[in-house]
Amino acid sequence: MAAIRVTVWNEYRHEKTNPRVAEIYPEGIHGAIAAHLRRAGSFEVRTATLDEPEHGLTEEVLEQTDVLLWWGHLAHDEVSDQIASRVQDRVLQGMGLIVLHSGHGSKVFGRLLGTRTGALKWRDDGERERLWVIEHGHPIADGLGEFIEIPKEEMYGERFEIPAPDELVFISWFEGGEVFRSGCCYRRGKGRLFYFRPGHETFPVYHHPDVLQVIGNAVRWAAPTPGAPAVYGRMAPIEPIGR
Amino acid sequence: MAAIRVTVWNEYRHEKTNPRVAEIYPEGIHGAIAAHLRRAGSFEVRTATLDEPEHGLTEEVLEQTDVLLWWGHLAHDEVSDQIASRVQDRVLQGMGLIVLHSGHGSKVFGRLLGTRTGALKWRDDGERERLWVIEHGHPIADGLGEFIEIPKEEMYGERFEIPAPDELVFISWFEGGEVFRSGCCYRRGKGRLFYFRPGHETFPVYHHPDVLQVIGNAVRWAAPTPGAPAVYGRMAPIEPIGR
Amino acid sequence: MAAIRVTVWNEYRHEKTNPRVAEIYPEGIHGAIAAHLRRAGSFEVRTATLDEPEHGLTEEVLEQTDVLLWWGHLAHDEVSDQIASRVQDRVLQGMGLIVLHSGHGSKVFGRLLGTRTGALKWRDDGERERLWVIEHGHPIADGLGEFIEIPKEEMYGERFEIPAPDELVFISWFEGGEVFRSGCCYRRGKGRLFYFRPGHETFPVYHHPDVLQVIGNAVRWAAPTPGAPAVYGRMAPIEPIGR
Amino acid sequence: MAAIRVTVWNEYRHEKTNPRVAEIYPEGIHGAIAAHLRRAGSFEVRTATLDEPEHGLTEEVLEQTDVLLWWGHLAHDEVSDQIASRVQDRVLQGMGLIVLHSGHGSKVFGRLLGTRTGALKWRDDGERERLWVIEHGHPIADGLGEFIEIPKEEMYGERFEIPAPDELVFISWFEGGEVFRSGCCYRRGKGRLFYFRPGHETFPVYHHPDVLQVIGNAVRWAAPTPGAPAVYGRMAPIEPIGR
Repeated sequence: MAAIRVTVWNEYRHEKTNPRVAEIYPEGIHGAIAAHLRRAGSFEVRTATLDEPEHGLTEEVLEQTDVLLWWGHLAHDEVSDQIASRVQDRVLQGMGLIVLHSGHGSKVFGRLLGTRTGALKWRDDGERERLWVIEHGHPIADGLGEFIEIPKEEMYGERFEIPAPDELVFISWFEGGEVFRSGCCYRRGKGRLFYFRPGHETFPVYHHPDVLQVIGNAVRWAAPTPGAPAVYGRMAPIEPIGR
Repeated sequence: MAAIRVTVWNEYRHEKTNPRVAEIYPEGIHGAIAAHLRRAGSFEVRTATLDEPEHGLTEEVLEQTDVLLWWGHLAHDEVSDQIASRVQDRVLQGMGLIVLHSGHGSKVFGRLLGTRTGALKWRDDGERERLWVIEHGHPIADGLGEFIEIPKEEMYGERFEIPAPDELVFISWFEGGEVFRSGCCYRRGKGRLFYFRPGHETFPVYHHPDVLQVIGNAVRWAAPTPGAPAVYGRMAPIEPIGR
Repeated sequence: MAAIRVTVWNEYRHEKTNPRVAEIYPEGIHGAIAAHLRRAGSFEVRTATLDEPEHGLTEEVLEQTDVLLWWGHLAHDEVSDQIASRVQDRVLQGMGLIVLHSGHGSKVFGRLLGTRTGALKWRDDGERERLWVIEHGHPIADGLGEFIEIPKEEMYGERFEIPAPDELVFISWFEGGEVFRSGCCYRRGKGRLFYFRPGHETFPVYHHPDVLQVIGNAVRWAAPTPGAPAVYGRMAPIEPIGR
Repeated sequence: MAAIRVTVWNEYRHEKTNPRVAEIYPEGIHGAIAAHLRRAGSFEVRTATLDEPEHGLTEEVLEQTDVLLWWGHLAHDEVSDQIASRVQDRVLQGMGLIVLHSGHGSKVFGRLLGTRTGALKWRDDGERERLWVIEHGHPIADGLGEFIEIPKEEMYGERFEIPAPDELVFISWFEGGEVFRSGCCYRRGKGRLFYFRPGHETFPVYHHPDVLQVIGNAVRWAAPTPGAPAVYGRMAPIEPIGR
């Protein structure tokens, strides 16, 4: 089996302006995730960031990407409509997409789901999060325990304005009193999407082994399979009509 | 119970240029559907068309609409982005939306579902269609038999690029050899959507009693219920954090 | 519209042996729920209990029942297989079913869902529960706030062995660290099912106005609609075959 | 990756009494499917039949089975309740199950889905079937064209009394006028189920390359993945309660 080709996309702004974030992620959030995926083997990994030409997501890069990871927060509006459409099209043609944490508010995610995916509750107080595995037979849960525990995280709470997921893998419990649908699978066109909640930039969440385990599992789950062709447009009948 | 306020939107172009369509629908497709809903009672019905200012869908009209019906075909691109966004927003806030036949390719439907909803097979040969009831306990099937039979219709065939419906009520069989998911329910934000396939402009489909029965049922199903409030943004904890 | 005919079924054992339960529910859990539904109007309410002949669920009673509520706990095994099958059949033919709290372990619920629905976590320490509304446009959430808060309840925690619900309306947060899918809609055959988590016998949960509100909403949601007939068996073709 | 261990179960009665079936399947339906899977490689295949002790499905055999295929028709009632329960339990613990054709009426399938899965339309006139691929990115559709065409088959028609599938991969068109949900994915407990319609005993359907392709794909899809543990029962809190 050929290696899965992964592109880790990051807005890459917090790391340049907030020393705390820079300390946690000296190579950027994308760098930390890419390093993990490279260590995990069986992936061919590259990265791309907002401030590169075409945000690093040229036609050529996307053509060579099986699964795209997306982390953004401050600058969703700076992503050009053209690139957002390009990513959307590629997902519909089969590319996997994994949207991380504050990427919920991105153009890419909102366009693919059709709702105001930026709408949710939040609180940035560094509280305990427990992500319970709801579908314990799901491949995205491979190798986990009953739950993932993160000692300090930003809270996200329901109501989260998303379509009901095709598969709901994780539900989060937060110390302060909220719950959240934290692991959401969707199929759109020929592509598979996974939203995974954890990853506030001021906590070392992408160094947490269980979080990294989920990311690797999700890449494998979202990678395209050959499937069948889809043909659109005018079509001749197989049966004579109007006998 | 207050009457459900319905707005029937129609592109209203075929009727002005194609004498056959004008003959079938002298008051327009919107006129035929509106007349039926008025006869059915318990609805307050108005119509709106593409060539009116703001396509007839002002803020005020939408504020006073519980359920919007949408028929379009030739001129999806002439619907302004602003009005398409306005309709999308209203659906997410609770307005019901019923998309009819070639309305599958509309901006409104595509934005709410996130896929290329214009992508399907078709053949305009006037062939027999049978819409089988798949969920026979669904309120949208109230009062039907086991299937709806339409003697002459345009064919639409799979693959239809939509997200898997939350509820699949009808599947069509076509004489020429195809099948189609013809009655598709979705929930998006606070609103309910129903896609209903039949209704090619050159056949008298919106005079068919079963088709009109489904449209009335769907309006009742899609009408907003009070539900619960959704609050978004920063939120204080109910529990003290970090003990 | 004719009144919805409701039968509230209760095991009715705790109330006879535990003085605390008897004090909270002097007329039994079924009595408290029935009294609420009678006050709410538009329902015709009767009750039935385990120790009546045929558990109070004769063919005649079920024939005259639009929606059945089910509370059981200690004596799931004392429900006869014959009556469990009778209830299952009636649901498949269109009767609504609302399963409350420890009713998750009942024969009726297990047979309709096909999994070991008794399998979940629990802790009987009287802790705070918050049921968050996940689908805020759903009719079962009508009239609620953003969440229901219950000051003291038994905890139920995931993994709960159920098929993924067709619609997930509530997710519970518990003070002690767990989450739970607390409001689950299913369609089975022609019938609609709703599982609603709260209701441990030693706390006055069925006197809580929001809990009662949900029960009334759920009865309306689960009540049968006419739908369409389903015909099974050998069938002649509409088209000649093998031309 | 270890080979997937497959057990092909067949009622194996038609082959012994109907010379036409014996001619098509000299080694039995199970033999034909097993031979294909062996040729396909990467599977460890055994067979089991109704008239063996414990129907060939001892605890030991099931313990060593990753995916079970099930073909039955005449003798669903002869499958013992005990063995049906044993298979159901194993599926809930993670074993994949693929139910073929008339296996829809089996105890095993009915118990896992909770509905009268034997209820559907049928006609045994040897008509043309076209299975359209609805989810063209699904791994079960790998390697197919837009549809599978079977020149002569028994018809199955809707209404088919099943819960709405978690994923609907195929819809069949029949020459005589019916449609059918022919490829249905479910998750139950830790296990994955796939129902695949084709396979009437008097036509050489299990020699059709596309049908065999789907069966191989489905085995790979249904094979257990490690997932996460599920713990049930009483549980201590992580948070102190009732502060």
